[in-house]
Amino acid sequence: MSDEILQHLQAGEEDAIARLCEFLSIASISTDPEYADHCQAAAEWIAERLNRLEISAELMESDGHPVVVAKTDEAGPNAPRMLFYGHYDVQPPDPVEKWDSPPFSPSIRDGRIYARGACDDKGQLMTFIEAVRAWRQAGKKLPVNITVLIEGDEEQGSHGLEAFIANHRELLSADVAIVSDTAMWCNTPTGEPIPAITYGLRGLLYYDVKLYGPTRDLHSGVYGGMMSNPATELMLVLGQLFDADHHITVPEFYDDVQTPTEAEREMWQALAFDDAKFAASIGVDALHGVAGFDTLQRGWARPSCDVNGLYGGYMGEGAKTVIPTFAGAKVSFRLAADQNPQKIDEAFRGWLDERTPPGCRWEITDHGQATPVIVPIDSPYLTAAKAALAAGFGQPPVLVREGATIPVVALFKQLLNIDTMLIGFGQNDDAIHSPNEKFDLINFRNGCRTHAALLSELAN
Amino acid sequence: MSDEILQHLQAGEEDAIARLCEFLSIASISTDPEYADHCQAAAEWIAERLNRLEISAELMESDGHPVVVAKTDEAGPNAPRMLFYGHYDVQPPDPVEKWDSPPFSPSIRDGRIYARGACDDKGQLMTFIEAVRAWRQAGKKLPVNITVLIEGDEEQGSHGLEAFIANHRELLSADVAIVSDTAMWCNTPTGEPIPAITYGLRGLLYYDVKLYGPTRDLHSGVYGGMMSNPATELMLVLGQLFDADHHITVPEFYDDVQTPTEAEREMWQALAFDDAKFAASIGVDALHGVAGFDTLQRGWARPSCDVNGLYGGYMGEGAKTVIPTFAGAKVSFRLAADQNPQKIDEAFRGWLDERTPPGCRWEITDHGQATPVIVPIDSPYLTAAKAALAAGFGQPPVLVREGATIPVVALFKQLLNIDTMLIGFGQNDDAIHSPNEKFDLINFRNGCRTHAALLSELAN
Repeated sequence: MSDEILQHLQAGEEDAIARLCEFLSIASISTDPEYADHCQAAAEWIAERLNRLEISAELMESDGHPVVVAKTDEAGPNAPRMLFYGHYDVQPPDPVEKWDSPPFSPSIRDGRIYARGACDDKGQLMTFIEAVRAWRQAGKKLPVNITVLIEGDEEQGSHGLEAFIANHRELLSADVAIVSDTAMWCNTPTGEPIPAITYGLRGLLYYDVKLYGPTRDLHSGVYGGMMSNPATELMLVLGQLFDADHHITVPEFYDDVQTPTEAEREMWQALAFDDAKFAASIGVDALHGVAGFDTLQRGWARPSCDVNGLYGGYMGEGAKTVIPTFAGAKVSFRLAADQNPQKIDEAFRGWLDERTPPGCRWEITDHGQATPVIVPIDSPYLTAAKAALAAGFGQPPVLVREGATIPVVALFKQLLNIDTMLIGFGQNDDAIHSPNEKFDLINFRNGCRTHAALLSELAN
Repeated sequence: MSDEILQHLQAGEEDAIARLCEFLSIASISTDPEYADHCQAAAEWIAERLNRLEISAELMESDGHPVVVAKTDEAGPNAPRMLFYGHYDVQPPDPVEKWDSPPFSPSIRDGRIYARGACDDKGQLMTFIEAVRAWRQAGKKLPVNITVLIEGDEEQGSHGLEAFIANHRELLSADVAIVSDTAMWCNTPTGEPIPAITYGLRGLLYYDVKLYGPTRDLHSGVYGGMMSNPATELMLVLGQLFDADHHITVPEFYDDVQTPTEAEREMWQALAFDDAKFAASIGVDALHGVAGFDTLQRGWARPSCDVNGLYGGYMGEGAKTVIPTFAGAKVSFRLAADQNPQKIDEAFRGWLDERTPPGCRWEITDHGQATPVIVPIDSPYLTAAKAALAAGFGQPPVLVREGATIPVVALFKQLLNIDTMLIGFGQNDDAIHSPNEKFDLINFRNGCRTHAALLSELAN
C-alpha cells in the first residue's frame, strides 16, 4: 500500500465520517415492514456512493429489500476477483428509551460514533468504500477486480439472498469473498482489542413458536385447571428444551457436532480468555452453560438455544386473570460446525409435535436458517488478509471463531464455491443489537487502512 | 313480594336499562392508572343513584379507588341487616379489536346488552338497585335494614378493601352479606341456564414473576450459550411448576386441600356436567387437567395454576436475535377450600429462590391474595335466598361451587364474621374478562325480581 493512498485516507477522514453519519441517519430496519422505504433509501444511497467511485452499481430486485450490486473489471482478466459483501439494513432500535442519543441521529462522543448500525454493518462496510475512495483519489487503478454485493435483509436472516445468489451465479462469481461484519478480539488480558480474522461461524435456526388453545380468552378463576392454558403449556413444553446439564433435548441434536482439533483448542487457550472479566462486562455474577465445556467452547464450538422473546396473554401493568387464546415464543438455535439446519429443523418440529398439549395446536413460523461455516486456515487469501490487517492496525491478527451467524458466508461456499475472509473491526462493547450501538473511530480508520492494503495484498 | 312491586319493576324496565347503559358507558378500568378518573366517575354515578333512592350514600377513601357506602335504618333495630356488595370497576377491554361494538358504548342486540362490565359486575349490581327502586315506587318501607358497599378495585384483587373493612367494622356490621357477581348454572343437559347459589369460591394468589440477567441486551449469536438467558431460564423454571400428572410441584402445596364430602360429590354428579359440550363451548377438542379428578372437581375443589401473561425480549414482527435483560410472566394460583394463601405464598417464593439461575435474580410483585371460602349449606339466609331465586326465576335454584375468587367474601367472613349469599345472574357465555362481554336482559329482569323478593324473604 503506497503512502499516497494512506495520505488520502487521512486527509479525507473528516468527509468520510460525515458520509457515514449521513448513511446512519437512514432508519433501514429490515425486519419491520413499516420501514421498507428507509431500506430502499439506504440501498439508493450506497449505490450512488459506489457510482461516484466509478464502480457501476445497480439496485436489483430480490425476495426482500433491494440488493445493490457493483462491479469493476479494470484489473484485467488475469487478476483475481474479490467479492465484497456488506449489509445496509439494521436491527430495530428498541428499547428506544434506553438510548442516550437518538438511534438514527448519529452522535460523535469521545472518539466514537453512536447510532444504530454504526458498527453492524454500515460503519464496517464503509471502511471498504472509503479504501476504494482513497485509491481513486490517488489516481490508481484497482489491482484486483471487485464485485460489491450489499444486501438489505441480513438482520432478518438474509432470507431472499439464497435465491438471489443462485439466480446470479455468473454475475457474482469470484475467487474469494471479503466481509467486514465481525469483531476484533477484545477479551485480551489487557482489555486492548487486537485485530482478528474469524475463521468459523455458527449456523442459525429462528422460529416463532405459537401455541393456540381456547378460541376465546377465558377467566382463569372460572376455567383454571379445566383445560390446557396455552401460556402455561408453552412454558411446560419449552421448559423441556434443556436437561439438568443444559444439554438440548431435541433427539439426535448433537450427532453431527464437529469437535475442535487439539491445535485449535491450544490456539484458543493462548487467547487467555478471562471468565470473570467477561461476566463483569455483561453485568452478571456468574456464567452458565452446557456442562463439560469452557466458555469459549460454549460460544464457538457448541450449539446453543435461546428464547429471544416471549408474548401472550395480559402483558400490561397489574393483573388480569385470563387464560389467553394463545402464547408465543421466539426460539432460536445456534448451530455448531457440521450441524445440518434442515435435519435440526425437522427434529425440532417433531419434538414440538410430540409434545402438543391436549386441546392445543402449534403454529410455527420460520424466521431464517443458516449453515455453520469453517474457513480453512491454510488458504492463501487468509495469508493476504493477515498481512493487510497487520498493515492496517500495526500488529498481526489472531485467528478466532465467532458464535454468531452471517448466513451469506455459507451461501458463498455452497453456491459460489468460495471461502470468505471475515475481517471485522468491531469491538465486543459496540452494543450491536442493543441500545447505544457505537463504533470507535480508531477502528473505522484502521479498517479503512486494512481494506486499502488488502487490495494490494490480494493482487500479489 | 307484592304484585305492586313486580308491576313497578316491569313498568320501569326501559328506564332501568337506560340507566344501566349510562353506567356501562363509564370506562372504570381499575387496573390501569390512566383510567382513575373514570373510576371516580363511576363511584359518583352509583352514589348519586343510591341517594335518589333515599339510601344516603357517600364516597369514602381507600387505598385504591373510592368506596361507595350507603345505609338505611328504616326497618328498625330488631330487623335483620343485609350488607349488599358489588363493584363498579371492570376488566381492561383488550384486545379491543375483537369487540363487535365498542366496549364502553353499550349495544343492545337480540335481547342482550353488550359492554365491558355488562355482567361483571355493573349489570348484576344494578339488579339490586332496581329492586330497591321498585319498592320505593310502590311506597313501601324496606323490611330489612340495608348497608350497601360498592368498591372499585375488585378486578385488581380488592387490594385496599381489607384495610377498609378492618377500619370500618362497625359501619359495615350486618347479619348476612349478599353478592350478585357469579353465574347461573349453565352446563345443564338442555343448555338452558337455571338459577344457582354459589356456596364455595376458590382463593387466589397472583404474581408478576420477573427474571433479570445481563444488564444490557446481548446478541444471541455472539453470546448464546455462554450465560443464563433470562427468557430461556424463566421457561426452564416455570416449566417445572407441574409434574407429568399436572400436579403443582411447589412443596406442601396440597397439604391442606379440603376433600369434598360424598354428599357434595353426589350433588355435583346430579348436575350431569357434560365434558364434550363444555369443551365445544370454549373451542377445544380435548380437556386437560390434574390426573385423577373430573372436570368439575378440577374447577371447583382442586387448586390450579395459570400463566396469565408472558412478556420479554423481542415481541414484534419477525426476528431479533437478542438475549434480553429480563423476561416476565404473570402467574396465578387458584386455591381450593382450606388452602392458606400466606403459606402457599411463602412456599412458592421459596420454590423460585431455590431455582434462581446462575447470574440471574428474581423480582416478584404481588398482585393480590384471597382466601378460599365455603358457605354452610344449612344457613337460614340460604333458605331465604333459595326462596327468592325461586320467586324471581320461577324455578328452584341448584347449589354449586365456583372456581373464581371474590376476595371480599373471605374478608366478610374474617373481619365481619358473616356469611355471604352468592346469588348470581350471569351465564357462562357472558364472556366476562373477554371481548364482547354481555348480559341477557331476561337475567337482568329476573335478577331484579329476585332481589325484590329477597328483601321480603330476609325479613321473615
